[in-house]
Amino acid sequence: MKHVAVFGAGRIGQIHASNLAALPGVKLDFVCDALPAAAARLAQQLGAQVADTDTILADPRISAVAICSPTSTHSDLIARAAAAGKHIFCEKPVDLSVPRAQAVARAVADAGVGCMIGFQRRFDPTFSEARRRMDAGEIGTPEMLVITSRDPGAPPVEYIKQSGGIFRDMLIHDFDVFRWILCADGDEAAWLSATGSVLTDPAVGEAGDYDCTAVTIRTHKGRLCQINTTRRAAYGYDQRFEVLGSRGLLQCGNQAPSQVTQWDANGIKADKPEAFFLQRYAAAYRLEIEHFFECLQSGQPFKTTVEDGVAAQKLADAATQSARTGQPVSL
Amino acid sequence: MKHVAVFGAGRIGQIHASNLAALPGVKLDFVCDALPAAAARLAQQLGAQVADTDTILADPRISAVAICSPTSTHSDLIARAAAAGKHIFCEKPVDLSVPRAQAVARAVADAGVGCMIGFQRRFDPTFSEARRRMDAGEIGTPEMLVITSRDPGAPPVEYIKQSGGIFRDMLIHDFDVFRWILCADGDEAAWLSATGSVLTDPAVGEAGDYDCTAVTIRTHKGRLCQINTTRRAAYGYDQRFEVLGSRGLLQCGNQAPSQVTQWDANGIKADKPEAFFLQRYAAAYRLEIEHFFECLQSGQPFKTTVEDGVAAQKLADAATQSARTGQPVSL
Amino acid sequence: MKHVAVFGAGRIGQIHASNLAALPGVKLDFVCDALPAAAARLAQQLGAQVADTDTILADPRISAVAICSPTSTHSDLIARAAAAGKHIFCEKPVDLSVPRAQAVARAVADAGVGCMIGFQRRFDPTFSEARRRMDAGEIGTPEMLVITSRDPGAPPVEYIKQSGGIFRDMLIHDFDVFRWILCADGDEAAWLSATGSVLTDPAVGEAGDYDCTAVTIRTHKGRLCQINTTRRAAYGYDQRFEVLGSRGLLQCGNQAPSQVTQWDANGIKADKPEAFFLQRYAAAYRLEIEHFFECLQSGQPFKTTVEDGVAAQKLADAATQSARTGQPVSL
Amino acid sequence: MKHVAVFGAGRIGQIHASNLAALPGVKLDFVCDALPAAAARLAQQLGAQVADTDTILADPRISAVAICSPTSTHSDLIARAAAAGKHIFCEKPVDLSVPRAQAVARAVADAGVGCMIGFQRRFDPTFSEARRRMDAGEIGTPEMLVITSRDPGAPPVEYIKQSGGIFRDMLIHDFDVFRWILCADGDEAAWLSATGSVLTDPAVGEAGDYDCTAVTIRTHKGRLCQINTTRRAAYGYDQRFEVLGSRGLLQCGNQAPSQVTQWDANGIKADKPEAFFLQRYAAAYRLEIEHFFECLQSGQPFKTTVEDGVAAQKLADAATQSARTGQPVSL
Repeated sequence: MKHVAVFGAGRIGQIHASNLAALPGVKLDFVCDALPAAAARLAQQLGAQVADTDTILADPRISAVAICSPTSTHSDLIARAAAAGKHIFCEKPVDLSVPRAQAVARAVADAGVGCMIGFQRRFDPTFSEARRRMDAGEIGTPEMLVITSRDPGAPPVEYIKQSGGIFRDMLIHDFDVFRWILCADGDEAAWLSATGSVLTDPAVGEAGDYDCTAVTIRTHKGRLCQINTTRRAAYGYDQRFEVLGSRGLLQCGNQAPSQVTQWDANGIKADKPEAFFLQRYAAAYRLEIEHFFECLQSGQPFKTTVEDGVAAQKLADAATQSARTGQPVSL
Repeated sequence: MKHVAVFGAGRIGQIHASNLAALPGVKLDFVCDALPAAAARLAQQLGAQVADTDTILADPRISAVAICSPTSTHSDLIARAAAAGKHIFCEKPVDLSVPRAQAVARAVADAGVGCMIGFQRRFDPTFSEARRRMDAGEIGTPEMLVITSRDPGAPPVEYIKQSGGIFRDMLIHDFDVFRWILCADGDEAAWLSATGSVLTDPAVGEAGDYDCTAVTIRTHKGRLCQINTTRRAAYGYDQRFEVLGSRGLLQCGNQAPSQVTQWDANGIKADKPEAFFLQRYAAAYRLEIEHFFECLQSGQPFKTTVEDGVAAQKLADAATQSARTGQPVSL
Repeated sequence: MKHVAVFGAGRIGQIHASNLAALPGVKLDFVCDALPAAAARLAQQLGAQVADTDTILADPRISAVAICSPTSTHSDLIARAAAAGKHIFCEKPVDLSVPRAQAVARAVADAGVGCMIGFQRRFDPTFSEARRRMDAGEIGTPEMLVITSRDPGAPPVEYIKQSGGIFRDMLIHDFDVFRWILCADGDEAAWLSATGSVLTDPAVGEAGDYDCTAVTIRTHKGRLCQINTTRRAAYGYDQRFEVLGSRGLLQCGNQAPSQVTQWDANGIKADKPEAFFLQRYAAAYRLEIEHFFECLQSGQPFKTTVEDGVAAQKLADAATQSARTGQPVSL
Repeated sequence: MKHVAVFGAGRIGQIHASNLAALPGVKLDFVCDALPAAAARLAQQLGAQVADTDTILADPRISAVAICSPTSTHSDLIARAAAAGKHIFCEKPVDLSVPRAQAVARAVADAGVGCMIGFQRRFDPTFSEARRRMDAGEIGTPEMLVITSRDPGAPPVEYIKQSGGIFRDMLIHDFDVFRWILCADGDEAAWLSATGSVLTDPAVGEAGDYDCTAVTIRTHKGRLCQINTTRRAAYGYDQRFEVLGSRGLLQCGNQAPSQVTQWDANGIKADKPEAFFLQRYAAAYRLEIEHFFECLQSGQPFKTTVEDGVAAQKLADAATQSARTGQPVSL
């Protein structure tokens, strides 16, 4: 039985806590949150106890922690948990500062613990099926990737102000998808050009951010990736990509709540995609936490490491710089 | 906390036992199966105990039972559980004999317990979304229903011999869908014509059964339903229906493992439907058992009653008779 | 150069006249219609002349005629044209009376002329692609056929009264599709059961007809076919079929005016099917008349003969009888 | 009756010549081609005569010409035809040199003749339906456009060498689509970044060109456009775009030869897109030439003017420069 603690009892903390508590062989002992009431509610719901960081990290029974607290706490918690010899599952991003994230990666390596970063898209049944077929050679060598990544609506401007900007906050996942899909053979980004606009709400621009972005990446092997993003798609949460290879194309579509189509005088209407990430990635969240514990059990490497976290953030930094200067960045 | 026992530790018993054990407020106390090893395995897995029927029915803490044992045991177990004052969830069919099923329905009514029959399709997210839109008036008055119901392969002939025939074994679900979708306003079947063939395996015919069938039902209000069925669809499990109303059509498609399409020299290829009923109806099984306990809690009526079970079996009997005689049946 | 005359300058006559006039090597010389103004308009538009039946049939240059006049004139015109040694393209049906249709078939055979019946669905690019794949063995042996055939709205009751009823007027095409798809190896219908309702307009019932029908056919080889039809589909003209074989399924969908999908707060909306038969079967009409002249040129047999016309009408007669009596018909 | 001459009897000249010859009120008098045999064949097929440029331009009956000869002849022929007072339909591009194209545009304006450039995509039924819905306000204000434009295979390297490069040869159409879809209110490109790779055939790179490209354009109003292109898509000709507006998305898919889907053990397979531009844009070519003559008749302006041709070429030049320098271009 693995004894585990969760840091953060917010939206994503609740997801991970419930999912890991339901795994056979895993016991959620502690929940920790800056808001005691939130911690207490989640702990009670899942039969765990509230505890503070020191208590958790000092408890020898606890072998792993899941870090779902605010971004600003990630690097510090990872470092402390690593020092305490705990294995770590941490939500993205490692840290908004790449140097700090790199330092954390070194600390993790030094401590010899496992650290998996929550890039849940790699566990989405549709996306991972595409990866599986690429591995099976079904489309030959990858050449181009087009990622469509659209949120149903912008978060509050207060959130945006401290988010690190859209490239670090939202596209971090897309940068990881780019590396996962186009760079599996060790290729990496060589050149990146990004641009952005404020089209949905002037307040986003006043906060120094963009709400619509377009990124292009060229790899050392000449593969091309385009990412288009908006904070506000009127029809909901839109998460697709398509990868062109020398022998074919894999297109990953959205998932819908039902398979009903309605035919009437207005046309033939299918469901919109799942409403937002909690619904769309429900299976992915389950599968990634399962993967974390399977790897702890088997000793296999995680599919998404802290190094992946650092690499995605470097791309986010490059995109931020490119969009601000209007110039491409060489990597 | 509701304390519950499950009869039957086979494929479907495992599904229901796991699902109800995961519900908050529900505790699986006992598992009962004619094969002690099967009972023990399931009980251990879910933290329950093995017990025999008498023990279970005599235990005053047990307020409900789930009957997932072989068809031949259903009516007797329902009657005994009802007499013992337990609420009942029972897999379809109530009994292969309509008179016995009717007697059981009376016994349940006399005992004043709840009895829900496991027509899980009514809980499938796609099918129930169609029903919801009909209730919302989106297609006007229903007029025609076309049901496509195809298994990926025939069960062993030994199973078929004691199954009551394809109409009772396989189409029972389709007859319930017919009543659920076309007869929600109290309409019922008035005329039924069925025919069948043996096209996939002569052994099916030697066992006195069909492997491909075509059924037509006309209701008192003149609504029309056609059902096409086969035991063997080379591409897998195919469960669709479409209902035409005065203002539009609702088409319910299959569910696929992923939303990947592969474009290559051969065409554009999407996933086959989910492999079989355990995958396709995974959500439906979860939702139906949840509904059972919600109704016990709230006192609301079940969506699928023992009377629905009897009504579907009457249609199965009529279809069997029609196919054998080559003549329609008036109901 | 083939010199040709067209009988009938109505909706379907205009289609065929335009299509044949555009073929290289074909010259439309004459148009004949009971309404001189209609004949004159079409003739002028296509550079032809108005003529009466006698003139046309007596003109030795005319080697072929296209009969697009009202149904009641078909058998007489076919017989006269055959006697005059003209090859014949005739719109369905040959005659509402099967014995008269059979007599006409004999007259055609005796005269040694070609007579093709306008079952244009066999030339629809989607439907004929399905037939081509069956011929290529892609789904193995055919087992079941489900035909969905729905008009966007009923014609005037005056038309219905003299139409011969929905089975002869509308399902005649579906009966031909049944034979084309399921009976290509010489199989034929053995048993037919039909039922009908009046759900859209009581006047249809008062005229002695149905507006919604359900037909089931079983062939000598045990293949099953179900046809569902309505005169009024709120979303338009719906022409689909799917054929299940021992190795797979071919599903033939509708054709849409555009490939635009609109994603908004209401869902993801695709176009309705093409509005009605003139749009849906535009390509089929072109291809069938091209086929007629190609066969005249090459001496190859027509894909749809007068015997096919007679066979479809026998099924229409059987369906009419079955629906009226409530009893199946053996063929 | 409009009397017309066609310059160029190659692949695209044959298309336009056949289409205009079939229009009521239009008479194709002359065909001109550097290869007399090609001219003679096309002329004979369509009942026209072979003539040289001087003869055609001197003939007062000829009121319009269609220029389908090689790119290098376009600007000179436009200028001469304009000087001779003929209306002009010219295939894209106007000229590989923007200054020469601009000079031609001025010559056309001075002569007061009409000059339409063959951007046939604006007449594609799917694409123009999207534009129509945008005009109807169905998706609000446009914000982002993603264009996927892929050829089934590269042309011979000899062609590529004199093509002006992939941006001028292939993306010229996409640049026009960008302007048509995102700039209908007078907005224009402000910033463009392009990059390219050679992934399919090193000979393309040796010829100084790319075979895979990624372009991003930002307009003055901040709208974003991404274009992804390859010379070689293993599955065929792929022509899609999707435009996101403040209220929804319009997605334009490919067109397929048939609506058959095949379900078997491998999955559910739909047709590949139409094979190449002659098939995909068959309707568009018909509709654009019809539009040309309708405008000549009605005096309405063309939907695609010589100014549109110049504007698209400026974008192609900018993309070429950006890809070569690795730096964005301000416009």
